[in-house]
Amino acid sequence: MNRHLISAADLSRDDAVLILDTAEELASVEGRAIRKLPTLRGRTVVNLFYEDSTRTRTSFEAAAKRLSADVINFSAKGSSVAKGESLKDTALTLEAMGADAVVIRHPASGAPRRLTGWISGRVVNAGDGTHEHPTQALLDAFTMRQRLIGAGAGAEADRRGRDLDGLRVTIVGDVLHSRVARSNVLLLSTLGAQVTMVAPPTLMPHAVDTWPCRAGYDLDSELRKSDVVMMLRVQQERMTAAYFPTIREYRRRYGLDTGRMALLPEHAIVMHPGPMNRGVEIAADVADSARSTIVQQVANGVTVRMAVLYLMLGGMADGEEAA
Amino acid sequence: MNRHLISAADLSRDDAVLILDTAEELASVEGRAIRKLPTLRGRTVVNLFYEDSTRTRTSFEAAAKRLSADVINFSAKGSSVAKGESLKDTALTLEAMGADAVVIRHPASGAPRRLTGWISGRVVNAGDGTHEHPTQALLDAFTMRQRLIGAGAGAEADRRGRDLDGLRVTIVGDVLHSRVARSNVLLLSTLGAQVTMVAPPTLMPHAVDTWPCRAGYDLDSELRKSDVVMMLRVQQERMTAAYFPTIREYRRRYGLDTGRMALLPEHAIVMHPGPMNRGVEIAADVADSARSTIVQQVANGVTVRMAVLYLMLGGMADGEEAA
Amino acid sequence: MNRHLISAADLSRDDAVLILDTAEELASVEGRAIRKLPTLRGRTVVNLFYEDSTRTRTSFEAAAKRLSADVINFSAKGSSVAKGESLKDTALTLEAMGADAVVIRHPASGAPRRLTGWISGRVVNAGDGTHEHPTQALLDAFTMRQRLIGAGAGAEADRRGRDLDGLRVTIVGDVLHSRVARSNVLLLSTLGAQVTMVAPPTLMPHAVDTWPCRAGYDLDSELRKSDVVMMLRVQQERMTAAYFPTIREYRRRYGLDTGRMALLPEHAIVMHPGPMNRGVEIAADVADSARSTIVQQVANGVTVRMAVLYLMLGGMADGEEAA
Repeated sequence: MNRHLISAADLSRDDAVLILDTAEELASVEGRAIRKLPTLRGRTVVNLFYEDSTRTRTSFEAAAKRLSADVINFSAKGSSVAKGESLKDTALTLEAMGADAVVIRHPASGAPRRLTGWISGRVVNAGDGTHEHPTQALLDAFTMRQRLIGAGAGAEADRRGRDLDGLRVTIVGDVLHSRVARSNVLLLSTLGAQVTMVAPPTLMPHAVDTWPCRAGYDLDSELRKSDVVMMLRVQQERMTAAYFPTIREYRRRYGLDTGRMALLPEHAIVMHPGPMNRGVEIAADVADSARSTIVQQVANGVTVRMAVLYLMLGGMADGEEAA
Repeated sequence: MNRHLISAADLSRDDAVLILDTAEELASVEGRAIRKLPTLRGRTVVNLFYEDSTRTRTSFEAAAKRLSADVINFSAKGSSVAKGESLKDTALTLEAMGADAVVIRHPASGAPRRLTGWISGRVVNAGDGTHEHPTQALLDAFTMRQRLIGAGAGAEADRRGRDLDGLRVTIVGDVLHSRVARSNVLLLSTLGAQVTMVAPPTLMPHAVDTWPCRAGYDLDSELRKSDVVMMLRVQQERMTAAYFPTIREYRRRYGLDTGRMALLPEHAIVMHPGPMNRGVEIAADVADSARSTIVQQVANGVTVRMAVLYLMLGGMADGEEAA
Repeated sequence: MNRHLISAADLSRDDAVLILDTAEELASVEGRAIRKLPTLRGRTVVNLFYEDSTRTRTSFEAAAKRLSADVINFSAKGSSVAKGESLKDTALTLEAMGADAVVIRHPASGAPRRLTGWISGRVVNAGDGTHEHPTQALLDAFTMRQRLIGAGAGAEADRRGRDLDGLRVTIVGDVLHSRVARSNVLLLSTLGAQVTMVAPPTLMPHAVDTWPCRAGYDLDSELRKSDVVMMLRVQQERMTAAYFPTIREYRRRYGLDTGRMALLPEHAIVMHPGPMNRGVEIAADVADSARSTIVQQVANGVTVRMAVLYLMLGGMADGEEAA
């Protein structure tokens, strides 16, 4: 396991499977009877958020607290950051205050990577610009395994069966600006899945040819051969005329409604990273259908983040951070 | 005890007395020597606040922490809510993250009730629109019992003496918009008190005739026969010409100053839910007088909320929330 | 030890040495193997911040949590304070909710002192107006002792060697508005140091003659005879024409760059309370040099605040707060 978690590209197949297996163990050991594990007692996790994201921040906070870590939320708003302090000085300050891990959300792609050059504690990327959001990809992979691979078979299960070999995943929407899409394609391909991106032409990144995935433009025909369809959130403020005439038009061509969901194979699941625009990229009855994994993804988010923090900090030797 | 606490109307006399008795036990067991009880260790309480109310949020936070629960504060500002996420999706998200109880403050009357249809964890209404604020009524009832009924008599005390039979309570101010008034009239009448509402005619709800209370319009004559007078907070921004000519005029007719306090029977107490507008609905020397229970109400707020969380979550079977 | 910590002037030499010695013990006992001490379990520390200061708030929060206290952050923004509640009512409310200590940051000089007249719990001044910031002075003194006095000599060390007798400290910048400067001059002189203030004439307080320090106006000659130089943060918004023509001019005359740092004796250290304006009052390479103690000061901030909370609350008799 690496010291930091910055990009899904940094994870080998073994790394990724280790995280998913650890999450699975935590989910079962933890149960609800043992709701609090003492593993990270005395460790401090700082949530350093330069963008509002109560959802992601809360998920990391819940994960850290269930492992008995202390959690400090450091929002850039109204802090020394607002007084012009550099990212580097903020990071050094937080480490000096005893942060064993810094979970960072930042509008600039690459900010979390820079952090790793400055501090000796662990760094977890909780979303940077349009770059990556690796724990989102891990929770998505965990959910696919849970729903489609039958990971519950235990120690005697065939190891090869526990990654995502051959799984056909279609990701739909504003791929150009989506760190969720990028982290997913990197992680899922590492785990053996076949990923297809479907986006309006103006929202498909030019570099997609260099990614380990296919680009598709006909949503309906892609759906017919998908095990998983993942709908990306539409940033309505971005859907200006430059990209797309109207929200209604976007919905007609790229939204997932009941009719379109019926094109999926019977076993296929519907994913969304949240928060949803019900009635835009996903219809309300699709979101609430039995195929939807949306709530399960949120629950798995906490579990997978527990696994990441556990693997990164649990084995950290005492005093190691005093590098 | 019900699964949720949404309205004071949902509480039977037995329910209410159970909460008050539990609070009394917690207040004595807890003392200051045992300041932290392990009862809710491993439980997660989420404060979901769609309106700013540091005061109420802090009270619930202190209550949950003294019972060793983990507390996550989820403010709607700057969250996925601000990105348009629905209340339902936010609630499902919080539950998926492991919330055993959601304490909700919402500007829309009825929002907490709707929550109970969506999630399997517990819901506590911490104030919804102009509807209800049941824990405020409980802490008020607890304070009345403490000051006027002599609840400290212990197990051998006459049970009937421990509710509020015959107590004469006068609630004064903007009844029309007050969730505190509404929850109090419902709870206090359940406990046997005789409640009178005194409000300027334009701030008396039409439906008051259907409430279990009297409407009064002559404050001074009501005060002469009150055991308790509860002054409601004036929302100065509401006191426009439509309702009332000036703040000064409001104070003259409905404010509680020393002269008016002298009309009360000798044993009577003065309550206020806070935060006060000193010099508007209540004079500073009244607020600071020996009859005032205002600080005691705040202390009792934590105790009563501990009792509510304890009763709702303490007996929750492990795994029950995985409904 | 006093009940409260409001001003560095309230600390006798013995008080100050006790805090520094306690901090030293905590730093060594604590180490990283025992990262969490149970001392303040069940105590509640409230951070009552009327000004944004994530940095100071986080430091106190980390300190309190490492001593196992519960921490409640109460920001004046969006609270009952914003609804016009007085400082007194807010303080009484927080105490009633169970605050054993209130850590207060306030824009008005004197606000923390007033608090001590109203509540029976402990009060720690975390910065009030242009008045004082005593824990900053304590962490600075602790850092000087650590770097220059060799405090690590243990119990057999000569006690007189452990304060700052004869140490020459130069504080540079906007002394007029600096609570850091004021608290430092008071504490450092108590501990035996010789303090010199260097400021632009318009930013030197008239009352400096009554302070236990010298005023200097020639930075370069002062640096040649300093063991410590402490650069104050420039509030750029204050550096209007009234005080100083341009930031560039300020930097040229009062900034610490590599050339000027070379004037210091070889053993001298460079301090800054943070957050820095790199390139204004301090050059980036000076801030990052081996002489800089800036990151160490942040780490010591947590340790010293632990010592303060430990001494103020650890010995508090149970029930004492129910005064």
